[in-house]
Amino acid sequence: MTPNLFADLTAELPSELTQTLAAGPGVRVERIVSHGHASPPGFWYDQDEAEWVVVVRGAARLRFEDGSVELRAGDHVTIPARRRHRVEWTTPDEPTVWLAVFFPASE
Amino acid sequence: MTPNLFADLTAELPSELTQTLAAGPGVRVERIVSHGHASPPGFWYDQDEAEWVVVVRGAARLRFEDGSVELRAGDHVTIPARRRHRVEWTTPDEPTVWLAVFFPASE
Repeated sequence: MTPNLFADLTAELPSELTQTLAAGPGVRVERIVSHGHASPPGFWYDQDEAEWVVVVRGAARLRFEDGSVELRAGDHVTIPARRRHRVEWTTPDEPTVWLAVFFPASE
Repeated sequence: MTPNLFADLTAELPSELTQTLAAGPGVRVERIVSHGHASPPGFWYDQDEAEWVVVVRGAARLRFEDGSVELRAGDHVTIPARRRHRVEWTTPDEPTVWLAVFFPASE
């Protein structure tokens, strides 16, 4: 059975769900499922790694310290290491499926 | 303007189209668009890197030396380094959009 990004999307999701789909030295591919979730108030991600992230299904808004970006299906963004960001909103209408690739920052 | 995986999907595509969306030391995230394309007869990919690949839109069939796997939207597969494989088929009905993450093989 081939694994699928859209498998097991339950209607009820008490908190964001993160699964590692593939990993190698310094690299991680994650599926993240949100359903109306946002980062806790005042919380910012501040990561050692760079992150490339795409919304595969659903809709979301990422906030950076200098602005925000709306993401619809297919929209993707690269977040350099140390660029503080938070998930400000995900649609309550359906599960939002993200793919995130974490990788070492460039020298 | 946020880049989108489904942008610039032209009906006419003389050959497979590959674009690097993000990269870091040892890591590459690529978008590949196929439209009825397959690997040339007798050609096998035989890579130093591991690859995680997902079909985001469309349909495809990957062949390995010991079998093949059909991929529909959302299906994903990890291909270890040195595992020979080829694209046996992609649907002629619409563009097939792949995301591929290339990363170092585990020690």
